[in-house]
Amino acid sequence: MKTVNAGILGIGNVGTGTYRTLQLNREKILESTGIDLRITKILNRHPEKDRGIAIDKSVYVQDVDSIIKDPNIDIVVELIGGIEPATTYMAEAIKNGKHVVTANKAALAANGEMLQKLATENHVMLRFEASVGGGIPIINALTSALLSNDFTEVLGILNGTTNYILTKMTDFQQKYADVLKEAQAKGFAEADPTSDVEGIDVANKLSILMSLIFGVNVPPEEIPTQGITNINQVDIDYANRFGCKIKLLAAAKKIGDKVECDVQPALIDVNHPLASVNNEFNAIFVRGNAVDDIMFYGKGAGPLPTGSAVVGDMISIARNIDKDSAYDMKPLLRYDSDLEYVGEGVNQYYVRLSVDDRPGILGNISSTLGRYGIGIESMMQSIQSRNEDESVPLVFIFYETSREVLDEALQEITNRSFVKSVDSVIRVQK
Amino acid sequence: MKTVNAGILGIGNVGTGTYRTLQLNREKILESTGIDLRITKILNRHPEKDRGIAIDKSVYVQDVDSIIKDPNIDIVVELIGGIEPATTYMAEAIKNGKHVVTANKAALAANGEMLQKLATENHVMLRFEASVGGGIPIINALTSALLSNDFTEVLGILNGTTNYILTKMTDFQQKYADVLKEAQAKGFAEADPTSDVEGIDVANKLSILMSLIFGVNVPPEEIPTQGITNINQVDIDYANRFGCKIKLLAAAKKIGDKVECDVQPALIDVNHPLASVNNEFNAIFVRGNAVDDIMFYGKGAGPLPTGSAVVGDMISIARNIDKDSAYDMKPLLRYDSDLEYVGEGVNQYYVRLSVDDRPGILGNISSTLGRYGIGIESMMQSIQSRNEDESVPLVFIFYETSREVLDEALQEITNRSFVKSVDSVIRVQK
Repeated sequence: MKTVNAGILGIGNVGTGTYRTLQLNREKILESTGIDLRITKILNRHPEKDRGIAIDKSVYVQDVDSIIKDPNIDIVVELIGGIEPATTYMAEAIKNGKHVVTANKAALAANGEMLQKLATENHVMLRFEASVGGGIPIINALTSALLSNDFTEVLGILNGTTNYILTKMTDFQQKYADVLKEAQAKGFAEADPTSDVEGIDVANKLSILMSLIFGVNVPPEEIPTQGITNINQVDIDYANRFGCKIKLLAAAKKIGDKVECDVQPALIDVNHPLASVNNEFNAIFVRGNAVDDIMFYGKGAGPLPTGSAVVGDMISIARNIDKDSAYDMKPLLRYDSDLEYVGEGVNQYYVRLSVDDRPGILGNISSTLGRYGIGIESMMQSIQSRNEDESVPLVFIFYETSREVLDEALQEITNRSFVKSVDSVIRVQK
Repeated sequence: MKTVNAGILGIGNVGTGTYRTLQLNREKILESTGIDLRITKILNRHPEKDRGIAIDKSVYVQDVDSIIKDPNIDIVVELIGGIEPATTYMAEAIKNGKHVVTANKAALAANGEMLQKLATENHVMLRFEASVGGGIPIINALTSALLSNDFTEVLGILNGTTNYILTKMTDFQQKYADVLKEAQAKGFAEADPTSDVEGIDVANKLSILMSLIFGVNVPPEEIPTQGITNINQVDIDYANRFGCKIKLLAAAKKIGDKVECDVQPALIDVNHPLASVNNEFNAIFVRGNAVDDIMFYGKGAGPLPTGSAVVGDMISIARNIDKDSAYDMKPLLRYDSDLEYVGEGVNQYYVRLSVDDRPGILGNISSTLGRYGIGIESMMQSIQSRNEDESVPLVFIFYETSREVLDEALQEITNRSFVKSVDSVIRVQK
């Protein structure tokens, strides 16, 4: 038997979930691994607050140093969230020779390169399974069992709040604002939902995934990112008629020596496995050159699912803690590839216009598009659904083009007198 | 850099896929792990046969001992398939101190306990990711990242051939025999499809999964197993009207200190993530007490996906080969739990009868069912679809009951003059 001691920073949702997971399964872990995993200290600045879980108060400390400098603690588990002071605490812990587990996507997306370098220098492990996809063991799979692959593509539904909202809008024709309120009431969405609904949370996660599978450093603020606040029922209905659903997708692709990526709502064929990922569930779809298409599906949030991932990382470190193996100290986050990051790349797009209801308009628009090299894959005119100003919707799915060229073409089209407005531009995932 | 030498037994589909996977990604593996993985010998009894891949003939040997007794070989990769001589070769390799990787579900299901015991005694690792779910890294996930969980349920689509056949029958109303022929032509089904279509292949895989997650030894021949040969269009259509698809499911559940399991076609709600797993894809759905519901989806067969899993195992062994760690030598296959195996357990069932078209019959049948404690969840009578003998179909979904009680009740019902036949009994997965 090997005893490994951990200290936890922060005892909010994820912290209590981690504590509870270990409480539930310590015996089972001991039995199947021979490792006795103990939480000996918890940083809790508000010990008077009821966390809804029985924790022996003697483990609470209010001073971070008493954890990150404790010679008896092997693993520091950072569950405070946010970029600071979490980054500083992790860096200090690493400098003190502690292995670090974190669920903090914001801190990793912002400072992963620095933290990983520091971990390598100090010969400790940095693990972060819970930072992407909650309980889904995607990071473990990509960095162990699937190491036998070169990856060319990753596609993910990485945010439970937005997926819950889009599912309700799709299946029950509910309005965005109503579902958001409902999600907040149920605890799926935060009081300030900006980071979720604007795609920022997903961009952080995609940045981490791209480091893992492509070895590139693309800061989240450089990822073309669009949230779901502009998605409405009309577009969900047209998507449905095209045999698609609208999902907030994180997408990254390697094409030759270039990497492209984006985070935005997209139409995806109903037969794609990601199209069936509903409500608060997350899923990550990866394409490897040996394994081909593979998808991981599960709960992207919640105290216990996230706790499952955190404790999984703790076990992984505990296994290797006294081995001093070159392999196990290999950084998971890599920033050493020669791949060039080129932004969004070319995609198919869904575009909805409002136009006058008279002949010749489609011909005029398609000639303009033709000059920009944009081909039309499919088109729908709904003369039944006339707008208040008598204009009618004209809906396209275009073949692959760059967003810049599309925007130029749409700009030119908008200047025509018969075009009332460009109502929606949504990526189409093929 | 660490050099690790492997010898492969058998160079059929999986063997060539393994060789090719390593050929494609050796550099990438070396870069990200520091391990130089080499295949130094291949047992090939027919070196004259074209394998469709460029392999330096000097690695071919025709004598198994020259691999399993080679002091320079660290890992023996068994890809011959079938119970014997594969089991004997693996046992000999283990006794010679070789770590073993295999894709062989039949040999593991039959002799896993003996092989694992031998591996533990000889302090070597036995790995078998490719034996369940092809390229899907389910075994790695269950035995590493998800070790933080106690598992209560596993549900899988574990055979690509039968899932391909059922998908074509469902989506294109094709007949079983026609799709089977098509699948054989495409190489998805073997010339003798018995092991696939009768569920034997799936029972082997379920037996392995149950050892991993429950620590029980349930030999495949003790698993209630039924194939897809009796599934027809009529039942697929009724399933559809009940909002379900029919899939060949492997199911195992832990209830208190009892374990139940079965392999059989089952109706599953279209909204369940497994219902969207189509064609030759496999998926494994697991419920853990922390991570909750989680699903892994990917290619269950094919040279490269299977090669991905085999090479993943080789990397996993290579990482730990010189560490002599108690943890890494922990058996993955466990047979030490106190859980009692009780067979199929209680389930919901779909039953289709042909009955005379006259009043009072439903009342009579439901009274009989009532005496057996069987409740009716839903019922459909289709007087339009009259059979040749003027009888009409009467279709039920029953609440949970044991198969034995159901069979007794159906036996009594069959004796009534107005009941022409019991046409189908299919499990319903809730």
